[in-house]
Amino acid sequence: MKRILIDMDDVMAETGLKILETYNNLFKTKFEKSDFDKNSFADIFKADNYLEVRKEISKPGFFRNLAVKENASEVIEKLYKEHDVYIVSAATEFPSSLDEKVYWLNEHFPYVEWQKMVFCGYKHMIKADVMIDDHTKNLDYFEGETKLLFNAMHNQQVKKYTRVSLWDEIAEILL
Amino acid sequence: MKRILIDMDDVMAETGLKILETYNNLFKTKFEKSDFDKNSFADIFKADNYLEVRKEISKPGFFRNLAVKENASEVIEKLYKEHDVYIVSAATEFPSSLDEKVYWLNEHFPYVEWQKMVFCGYKHMIKADVMIDDHTKNLDYFEGETKLLFNAMHNQQVKKYTRVSLWDEIAEILL
Repeated sequence: MKRILIDMDDVMAETGLKILETYNNLFKTKFEKSDFDKNSFADIFKADNYLEVRKEISKPGFFRNLAVKENASEVIEKLYKEHDVYIVSAATEFPSSLDEKVYWLNEHFPYVEWQKMVFCGYKHMIKADVMIDDHTKNLDYFEGETKLLFNAMHNQQVKKYTRVSLWDEIAEILL
Repeated sequence: MKRILIDMDDVMAETGLKILETYNNLFKTKFEKSDFDKNSFADIFKADNYLEVRKEISKPGFFRNLAVKENASEVIEKLYKEHDVYIVSAATEFPSSLDEKVYWLNEHFPYVEWQKMVFCGYKHMIKADVMIDDHTKNLDYFEGETKLLFNAMHNQQVKKYTRVSLWDEIAEILL
């Protein structure tokens, strides 16, 4: 049995797509997912505009109705039964996201017990064997043996980790 | 520099006193802190009544205005400057407590950055040198070298850890 840390935003939830949609709505732009294949949000979005988007992210409701990544709940349920799984989200920057993330997990991943949820900032002090995350800032400081980079718009340039784009690929690696 | 995990309820905040006050208000009892010197809440409170108290704990507002333990902010600020301090609260059982705990920390411990806050269930997977906690369920599974049991009404029977009752005592041990 391995201890596995699973990130939420852009790993379990389609957070990036909602940020893109929020930007397009606010600034009447028509950016698409493919525009970020080779560029991060920070490259394409105007800095001042992105600050406005961050205000939207901070508002109650933003995290409550995010779409679930394809097959995430099915694969994580199997992992949860076979391994010691923790859902670990860097969420304390946005206080109003915290209860929404619990309710979102309760709705879409009802088998995840409250004891296995972690809302934090830094993640490097959490000891585990596997980390599934979309951010190098988390994977770089993780001390476990297996690091999986979940494909996301903002990490297209990253080469140094095993990249996974679908939960079915994670199932093949870990189940 | 040591990594230190500091619990919130009954370590930084007077949560037990608010539970006692809530019980007395709901059931017109007159329990005092000293009634729990040799007994836990579970020993004295009627089980059905305690379920009612837990409903109150689940309601928005319960955690927002807790009193701060004497000298907690002053001592933790010094620890925060000298060590790698994380505030770690088993809080995901009560979703509405989560943002309140962030705002409470912002108000009374404004130097604590969001990156150093952890809201979780289990704590044993967090790697550190020192844990300050009022619950044996956390201290028992902590793998670090120093375990300090913060004196609380519910842990009067516990003998196996170094007991601290005041933040000034913790300052003497860790600063």
